[in-house]
Amino acid sequence: MNKGEELYSGKAKTVYRTEDPDALIVVFRDSLTAFDGEKKAEVSKKGYYNAQISKKLFELLEENGIKTHYREMVTDNEMLVDNIKIILVEVIVRNIAAGSITKKYPIEVGQPLEPPVIVMDYKDDSRHDPMLNEDIAAALGLATKEELAGIKKTALEINGILKSYLDGKGLLLPDFKLEFGRRGDEIILGDEISCDTCRFWDKETGNSLDKDVFRFDKGDLVAAYMEVARRIVPEIFE
Amino acid sequence: MNKGEELYSGKAKTVYRTEDPDALIVVFRDSLTAFDGEKKAEVSKKGYYNAQISKKLFELLEENGIKTHYREMVTDNEMLVDNIKIILVEVIVRNIAAGSITKKYPIEVGQPLEPPVIVMDYKDDSRHDPMLNEDIAAALGLATKEELAGIKKTALEINGILKSYLDGKGLLLPDFKLEFGRRGDEIILGDEISCDTCRFWDKETGNSLDKDVFRFDKGDLVAAYMEVARRIVPEIFE
Repeated sequence: MNKGEELYSGKAKTVYRTEDPDALIVVFRDSLTAFDGEKKAEVSKKGYYNAQISKKLFELLEENGIKTHYREMVTDNEMLVDNIKIILVEVIVRNIAAGSITKKYPIEVGQPLEPPVIVMDYKDDSRHDPMLNEDIAAALGLATKEELAGIKKTALEINGILKSYLDGKGLLLPDFKLEFGRRGDEIILGDEISCDTCRFWDKETGNSLDKDVFRFDKGDLVAAYMEVARRIVPEIFE
Repeated sequence: MNKGEELYSGKAKTVYRTEDPDALIVVFRDSLTAFDGEKKAEVSKKGYYNAQISKKLFELLEENGIKTHYREMVTDNEMLVDNIKIILVEVIVRNIAAGSITKKYPIEVGQPLEPPVIVMDYKDDSRHDPMLNEDIAAALGLATKEELAGIKKTALEINGILKSYLDGKGLLLPDFKLEFGRRGDEIILGDEISCDTCRFWDKETGNSLDKDVFRFDKGDLVAAYMEVARRIVPEIFE
């Protein structure tokens, strides 16, 4: 497969058409943004590590019965995926309080959230991704209430699979963001699962090994992403 | 019943204890605030009209099987109510888009919302009443998911009763805010149902007959509130 027309360039990935109308190529770039795009950087190898981590986690989910848009890697940081129609809802799953939830509500950083808390935001940068509920998402025509219930159920299944897998790698999963899309009649997982879209905390030290290193200048970003890659995709270091 | 110790003074009402520990007196004041308390005014007779409108709508709901905290009027603007433990969730029911939903999302003012949209906000002025969902409300310990489902169901029943009643009075009900509380094991309706907490639009002209007159300087506030009172509680003008 070769990259055709550029379809869309986001904050960290660029998406291209291919000769197959049902497939796209996603290029994981080295760009990083945070705080609604206010903070920006280019970090060498970031795209590579995120692509490899995403690949491994998509494969893990597929092995566990979760349908995803992942097909195969084209190059080290280029992924062939199904051409799904993205649903404009960001699904955030939270196991331990961190980030925005601790600013908006009286919830302390580190507080366990059991059962996990799911938040859905409207994917619209110009509106700063306002929070949704099922009624509003349906009124906006983003998805039906039945579809949203299915998405929440799948998000919780994904959470269970990822949490247990990452625990074996010495990583806590405080929260992560998912995006879903339509492939024919099905709704399947899209986007990426990486250090940009998950919070990963080292189980022993509690240190952030994710985009918070960039957001809050916590140290060497590429070292953090590489550490996650070492645990999840050790084969790329051989 | 006589007013005892002042328990709480809010933006538009003051609540007093009585000799009965299970009953409170709510005084509907002439104070008005909007925009998170930034805009303030005192408007003569506002408290009176709101108290009388609330009384009538609470009675209407009780007649239709909805449990409320309303007991009886003590004076023209003082209401005896059950001493319920308020649940810190503002329940907003929307039938026609207006106000904040049209600013946060691509929804036009006047767009019918069918089925109605329910939004729950965390009642916390210092945090600017952030929006909730069931998971967050449960994590905050405000109410269980089962309780919230019951509250939503009751809110929709209340909506049906009010909409049909107000239609007969030539009023549209674009949206309104409810608060619920615990009386023993039950969750019942509290707070008020008035021109401060509902949007009322004249069915013929579409004119606002509610707090939007104050928010957006649309004219004579007391005339608007009096017009609603004339339609809902004509007996007070006899």
